[in-house]
This record gives sequence, structure tokens and C-alpha cells, in this order.
Amino acid sequence: MSNDKNHVVIFDTTLRDGEQCPGASMTLEEKLEVADLLDEMGVDVIEAGFPIASNGDFEAVAEIARRTKNAVIAGLARAIPADIARAGEAVRHAKRPRIHTFVSTSPIHLQHQMRKSEAEVIEIITATVAQARNLVDNVEWSAMDATRTPIEYLVRCVDTAIKAGATTINLPDTVGYATPQEYEAMFRQVRERVPGSDKVVFSAHCHDDLGLAVANSLAALAGGARQIECTINGLGERAGNAALEEVVMAIRTRGDVLPYATGIEAGMLTRASKLVSAVTSFPVQYNKAIVGRNAFAHESGIHQDGMLKNNTTYEIMTPESVGVSKTSLVMGKHSGRAAFRDKLKALGYELGENALNDAFARFKDLADRKKVVYDEDIEALVDQEIAAAHDRVKLVSLSVIAGTRGPQRATMKMEVDGQVFTEEAEGNGPVDATFNCIKAILPHTAALALYQVHAVTEGTDAQAEVSVRLEDGDKAVTGRGSDPDTLVASAQAYIIALNKLQTKRNSLNAQAQPAAE
Amino acid sequence: MSNDKNHVVIFDTTLRDGEQCPGASMTLEEKLEVADLLDEMGVDVIEAGFPIASNGDFEAVAEIARRTKNAVIAGLARAIPADIARAGEAVRHAKRPRIHTFVSTSPIHLQHQMRKSEAEVIEIITATVAQARNLVDNVEWSAMDATRTPIEYLVRCVDTAIKAGATTINLPDTVGYATPQEYEAMFRQVRERVPGSDKVVFSAHCHDDLGLAVANSLAALAGGARQIECTINGLGERAGNAALEEVVMAIRTRGDVLPYATGIEAGMLTRASKLVSAVTSFPVQYNKAIVGRNAFAHESGIHQDGMLKNNTTYEIMTPESVGVSKTSLVMGKHSGRAAFRDKLKALGYELGENALNDAFARFKDLADRKKVVYDEDIEALVDQEIAAAHDRVKLVSLSVIAGTRGPQRATMKMEVDGQVFTEEAEGNGPVDATFNCIKAILPHTAALALYQVHAVTEGTDAQAEVSVRLEDGDKAVTGRGSDPDTLVASAQAYIIALNKLQTKRNSLNAQAQPAAE
Repeated sequence: MSNDKNHVVIFDTTLRDGEQCPGASMTLEEKLEVADLLDEMGVDVIEAGFPIASNGDFEAVAEIARRTKNAVIAGLARAIPADIARAGEAVRHAKRPRIHTFVSTSPIHLQHQMRKSEAEVIEIITATVAQARNLVDNVEWSAMDATRTPIEYLVRCVDTAIKAGATTINLPDTVGYATPQEYEAMFRQVRERVPGSDKVVFSAHCHDDLGLAVANSLAALAGGARQIECTINGLGERAGNAALEEVVMAIRTRGDVLPYATGIEAGMLTRASKLVSAVTSFPVQYNKAIVGRNAFAHESGIHQDGMLKNNTTYEIMTPESVGVSKTSLVMGKHSGRAAFRDKLKALGYELGENALNDAFARFKDLADRKKVVYDEDIEALVDQEIAAAHDRVKLVSLSVIAGTRGPQRATMKMEVDGQVFTEEAEGNGPVDATFNCIKAILPHTAALALYQVHAVTEGTDAQAEVSVRLEDGDKAVTGRGSDPDTLVASAQAYIIALNKLQTKRNSLNAQAQPAAE
Repeated sequence: MSNDKNHVVIFDTTLRDGEQCPGASMTLEEKLEVADLLDEMGVDVIEAGFPIASNGDFEAVAEIARRTKNAVIAGLARAIPADIARAGEAVRHAKRPRIHTFVSTSPIHLQHQMRKSEAEVIEIITATVAQARNLVDNVEWSAMDATRTPIEYLVRCVDTAIKAGATTINLPDTVGYATPQEYEAMFRQVRERVPGSDKVVFSAHCHDDLGLAVANSLAALAGGARQIECTINGLGERAGNAALEEVVMAIRTRGDVLPYATGIEAGMLTRASKLVSAVTSFPVQYNKAIVGRNAFAHESGIHQDGMLKNNTTYEIMTPESVGVSKTSLVMGKHSGRAAFRDKLKALGYELGENALNDAFARFKDLADRKKVVYDEDIEALVDQEIAAAHDRVKLVSLSVIAGTRGPQRATMKMEVDGQVFTEEAEGNGPVDATFNCIKAILPHTAALALYQVHAVTEGTDAQAEVSVRLEDGDKAVTGRGSDPDTLVASAQAYIIALNKLQTKRNSLNAQAQPAAE
């Protein structure tokens, strides 16, 4: 077989199936950041969203289509003419546009959800795939719930879709039900029985409800599939999709029995994982394969001993191969500007001169308060610096009184469009009091949807990193703040989130209070 | 085949392989709690620890052996006489004791770690298995790194172990390297070629480095294995072990193609997951299969629509089947004592009359401050009530001043052995200041190893749950506190952890300050 025949198309759906899972919605800005990284990493197809779902989704797909340099950009569409037209419109500025349309094929979906007959669905497939193909050359058709569809009918559907012009045929395990053997057999049977199967690419899309998503994806390759749909960190509906990083590293590590190749730059996997975790505020399990913080950590004496003697005794891939940096450069108050710049580079940040100076000043400030400044501290600090660059609203000062005697009280000075306001508020706990100050200075309709505290590094001497997610109608944004004082970090995170909502200026209606001092 | 032939022995190694992973160490008390739950849940074999590793490990195995009602209790031992003797001593009071001894068999381990020849290892197997068999009837032998061992040599090793008296043969994928096909083939080949294979139970032990642990475990069953070694939440070295809950639910959900049965009470899986996550402070990923908070959550409009029409359209198992309670009984300030008791029962708590009264008083107090009291709030409250039952040290009051103007200051009153002390302290952030007060009142050698804040329920109106892990020499304890005020919860968590360390009284040397007021 030629190399080409063994190339596996990596189709990333972090921005569609991933973003669709409860609590993981991303802002336009966050989606662009993720899409840029996916493209840079070598993802072949980026499913950028579901354009008909909302104007926000449409805009995100259109903007990603415009800016992406290499990847095919796919937009999802139900088997409905309006969906397909909207998807076509969203992706049309892409260098390589794709419409991805799907329809349920399983009896249980036909009966309970679609309320259509098998014959009606066949007609729908012909009409919708043809419509999509009139808009773009690259059309993917998915048989939703394929793994619970009788093989005879599935063959008819696939045959219909190929005849109507589909170029990729996806047979998803929508409910995470299949075993590897079954999934492989399904691909083999469909490909053997449908004429023209060798002219299209078959695709796997697996969910992890029984913990089998990665194994099923790899089994599909044995059955003849050459596209795998997956997400960073395995994000996705319910138990999520197959994790991109696991699929890629399994193929790479076991090339001897999995004779395939992907175009993914594995050294960027860790960065991608961290970015997606940060923008969704979804923590990555410590023992998550490839990207968990323990994935390359060895504690037991036996394993440590083996590792010291030869790292292949217990490690089948190196941490470096997936981008875990092992820089030994520890930063502290005596570190200079050059060392700081080098460290930023090693962490993947390239700042302009002004931003670098600002970040360095904040780093020195932090180093005065903390003995050792870890990589995570610096990442948190720079992320915040970047976010704060163009803000309408800024925290000037905060003072909080808390404890067992409640109600807790906060006093805050905040700058809005250059003017300083002061407010005092009570609350149920110091965080609530702090947020009540912000609400008093800047009344807004957005509601708090999530509040999370992470200690960025170990110990109380650490920076606290706080995530705040605000929701306003169908718009949701996440702000992150970091400071040794949890309450200051909380205020910052809330204010950053408010700034991200600033496009909706009407909801930000500053009620002026005379500024004290 | 008889039902017996299809029974899969569930061997849980949460307390050994799980506890061995960086950051997951548990106290004796926590191990007993986990072991009791595993036994109640129907786990067939509990690997309780590695007795030679430390006195703490020995005591834990011995105590679990004494108290466990049904499960076989296994103690791990290297292929060293002293290890095996110690393991035998630890498990001897068990109703059904097992010694689990292992030796590396792969060339890479023999060469780099063991520095032994193949023939030497064969002799070691004979000697160590025979020694173990003299101590107990139930001996498991493991070929460490079996999946990277040439089949010829593996067959010789297994043959040797069976002849020496092993009753269970474990062929682990120590480095998480195998694919399902390979792993199945290995079991099939070894079982076909070793005489007496049908007299022993073959066992799978898989690591998830490439995301294949569950698939490999199930493939082993097809190859003839009838024991699966796994852990709650997939805890374990590096990327962890196969997740018990995924293995059990895959077998249960796909009985049509996986014709096996386990003795696990699936309705307890969620409780087990929560307990292990709590005692290790390891978060469970939201999209973790079976036990993640999103595992049964549906957000996208299409899926919600399908779910409303018929829940089998997108769900292959019910949340109830794994113990996710959907009680609609919302608690608030008007809820009475009977409703509170019923709720506790539904959540799995049976409190004595006094503890119930105390918990109810705290619940009313909380309900006054919060509109809706969620199940998680009540769980947090009761857990804390149970922990506080026999405490030397108690928080009386706390007052904290924090904000941007630092240094942050805390004033605390704390009761130690019935006497009240007051201290003031500064710190780098309000949490640091709070902990510095505790240290000033009660100097101690234990160091803070972990500090985590979780919002127990959504929003700032929520209770914050704080975990504090203290380490003192080789002893580590975790305390959890919950309160609407993060700082009060932090102080409580720290004090609970200190109380757990109370057996080391000498390190708790209260320096009396006259109590103010």
C-alpha cells in the first residue's frame, strides 16, 4: 500500500461536538484561538460548528473558514434544506470548505425521533446530499446511530449517499454502544457491499460511554476507515468523543501493528489540551492518558528504580514527544528579563515589547511574594496580561472582611471607561460580597454560571487561579484571574469576563457613583 | 457453557495500584472506608496493599483482612522471600487470603531492571510461588510486562508458575502498550500451550497509556481470561488502570456480545467513584464514562428532543442503574426533620440520633442562608459532621481582612482540648493568613501538601468545599470543610486534617496564649 492509503484524516470536532456538551460553550474569541492551534498542529479537518444553531455559531464557522490556512473547514447541517444552505454560506470563504450533513438511520431513531419510514429517509439522503454537493465539492454524510442500524438498510443508505455525491461517509457510534469487533465488522461489510466504496473516505466517530471510543476508532481503521473524528481531551456529549491525543499517540507509538500515519505534530498535544481545558474550565483528570498531569509521573519505588536504570522499562513514549517541557529553569526574584523572555518562549509565548515589559513587572511583583515561581504561575500571569490589554473595566482596589461572624463585607474601587467608582457590599461569603460590589458599580444582566478556584501551584503560598463564567442570554464567556489573594483573583476573573461581554454594551450600564478619593 | 464459566472475577486494586500513583496516598481510615464499600459492592478480590512497602501498608492490609466479610484479600509481594512472608502475615486473618507475587519477564526488564537471565527468573518463579503456596491456598502470580515478553518464554514462565502452585495467572500490560487484538491473542496462545491452563484463572491487568485499558481488558475475556484487575475511576500509575465502572457497565450493557457476568452491584458505582475521588482529592473528569458529571447529561437540542421522545434514543443505560439518584425532593428552610432524615437515607447515610440532631441543626442554619439546599450541600455537611465527632481541635471563630492592599490579616479563636486560644496573623493572601493563625496557636511539623477549593454547588450563593492535605513524615491526611465562606471552609478543612493527625500527639504541642474575652 502506498503511504497515501495509510494516511488517517484527523477530523477534530472539539468546536462542535465538544462545545455542544453541557458547560463547555466557548466564546468566538476562544473558538478562534482553538481553531488556530488545531490548524497549526496539522489537523486535517476542523468541524467549526453547527451554523444553523445560532448566529454565534454561524459567525464562528464563517470566521474560522476565512482565517484558517490549511485545514478543511466543515460546518454541520441536519438533513434539512435550510440547514444545508446555512452551512454552505458559513464555510464558503474557506480555502477548502466541507458541508457535513447527517440523518438518523436506526429504527429507534426513525420511529421515535424522525417519525419517518425507511423509504422516506432514503429520499431525504438523495435530496440533501445533492443539495450540499451543489454548494461544495467536499460533502460528508453521516448515518446517525449507524451502530444500531441493521446492516442491510445501512448499506442502502450509504449507497444512496455516495450516488448523490458524498465524498466522505461517516458511520458514527452515536450512543457509545459498539465494541471494537462489531465496529470493525460494520465498516468491512459496508465497504464490501457498497459499489464505489473505494472512491470515498470512510470515517469513524465514537463516543466513550463504555470507555471504548479510542479502541473503536482504531478498529474502524482495520475495517477500512481512513478518517477519525475526535476531540481534544475527549470533550463531547455525555462521556465525550474519542480523545484526539490518544488516537494520535496510539498510532504513533504502535506503528508496528497500526500501520497508519497522521499529520499531527504530536509535540503540540499538551498545549492543545491545556488551551481547551482553560477555555472550557473542564479539568483534565490527573490520570488522563497522554495529557493528564500524572501521565508521565512515576511514584512507586519499583517503577522509579526502573526509570532511573532505563526509561523504556516503564515508558512507551517520552513526555517530550507530546510537548511536556522539562525545563529545569526555575524562576525567582533574581531572574532577569532575558531569562524571563527565554522562559516565555519555552512556554510557547511570544510577546511584543510592551506586553513583555508589563508581564515582567508583574512577574517581579509576584517573585517578591513567592519563593519559587513555577511555569504555571507564569502562564497564568501572561494569560491574564493578554486578556487585560484592551479593557473597559479595571479593578483598582479591593478590601474584604470575612469570617465566621458574617455577613461578609467588601469595599471595591473599579475603573469604568477611565472613571473610578467606589462601592461597598455585603454578601453570603466573601466572594459573594466581592461580586456584589461589581454588580453595584456596573449593573448587568449577565448571570454567574460557574465559579471555580484552582491553586495554580501547590501550597497556600501559591497563586490562586479563579475561573468565572458569565451567561447573558445565549452568550457565555469565561474570565480567569490569578493572584495570591483568592478574592482579588475572583474579582479579576469576574471583571475579565465582563470585559469579554463588552460587545453587548447596552447591558453594561454604568450607574455613576461619585468616585471617592 | 455454564454460568460459572462466564463469571468474571473483579479484582480491585484501587488500594494498591491506585494508591501508588503520585498524590493519591490514603490514610488507614480512608482505606478501610474504601475497602468496606468495595466489599459491600460485590468486588471479588480486594488488593489491599503492598505489605512490605511500609508499616502503614502492612497495617492497612492486615486490618482490611480482619474486617472484610466476603471478598478475597490480596497482598502484593515481589519475588523476594521477605516480601512473600510479610504479605502472608498481613493477609492471614482474612476469611479468604491471597498472596499476589510478581516478577518481570520481558527482556527489557530482565536486562535493565532485574539483571537476571531467563533461567534465573524461572528458578525464582518456582521458589517464590512455592513459598507463597505454603502460606496460603490462593496464590496469584503475575508476569510483569507480559505484553513485551516473547511468547515462548512467557509460556515457560506460566507453566512454571502453575506447576509451583499458582491458582491465578495474571498477564499484565504493565506499560499500557498492547492493542486489543494482541492482548486477546496472547491469552489464547498461552492458554493453548500451557498444560493445566484450564485449572487456573487467567487475569488481565491493563494500563491506559494509549486509552485502551478497558478495550484490552474485554479482549482478554475473549482470549479466555476470567479475572480483570481494575480500579475505581481508573486510578493508578501514570494514565491509570482500567476503570472498574467502565468494565462492569460494558459487560452489563453489552451482554449480547460480551456473554459474561460480574457480581458487582452497579447501583453503588457512583458512590464508590465519589468516595475515591474525595479521599484522594483527584477530580473526576466531567466527561468521564459512567461516573463523570456529564456522563448522563444532554445539552444539544437534537439530543434533548430525542430524549424527551424516548430515552433509549441516546441513552444505552439509565443513570439510576449506576446509582445516580434523581430524587426530586428539594430541601429548603421549611423542610422538617423527617424529610431531612429521608433525604439522608436516600443519599446513603444512616446517622445515630445525636449525629442526626447535630446535622439537622447545621442544615437549618445553612438553609437560612441559602434558598435551595442541594444534595451535594447535604453530603458535604454530613461528611463534615462525621469527621468533627471526636475532635481535639475546634474552630470557634475567624475574622479575615483581605484585598489588594495586603498583607492580609486573620484573627482566629480556636479550641484545643477544651481551652480557647486567640491569635492574629498576617499572610500572603487570606488563606495563608488563616493557616498562619492555626500554626501560631498549634505549632506542628506537618506541612501543607495540597489545597483545593471546589464550589459544592453552582454560583457564589454556594457552599465552598475545601480540601487540605497535610503531610507529616510518611503520614498524609486530607481534611475537608464546607461553608459559604471559603475562608471558614479552609480553616475547617485544615483543622479536620490536624485532628486526623492527632495520633501523633507529640507533634501537636499547643503553646498556650491566654484566651481573649
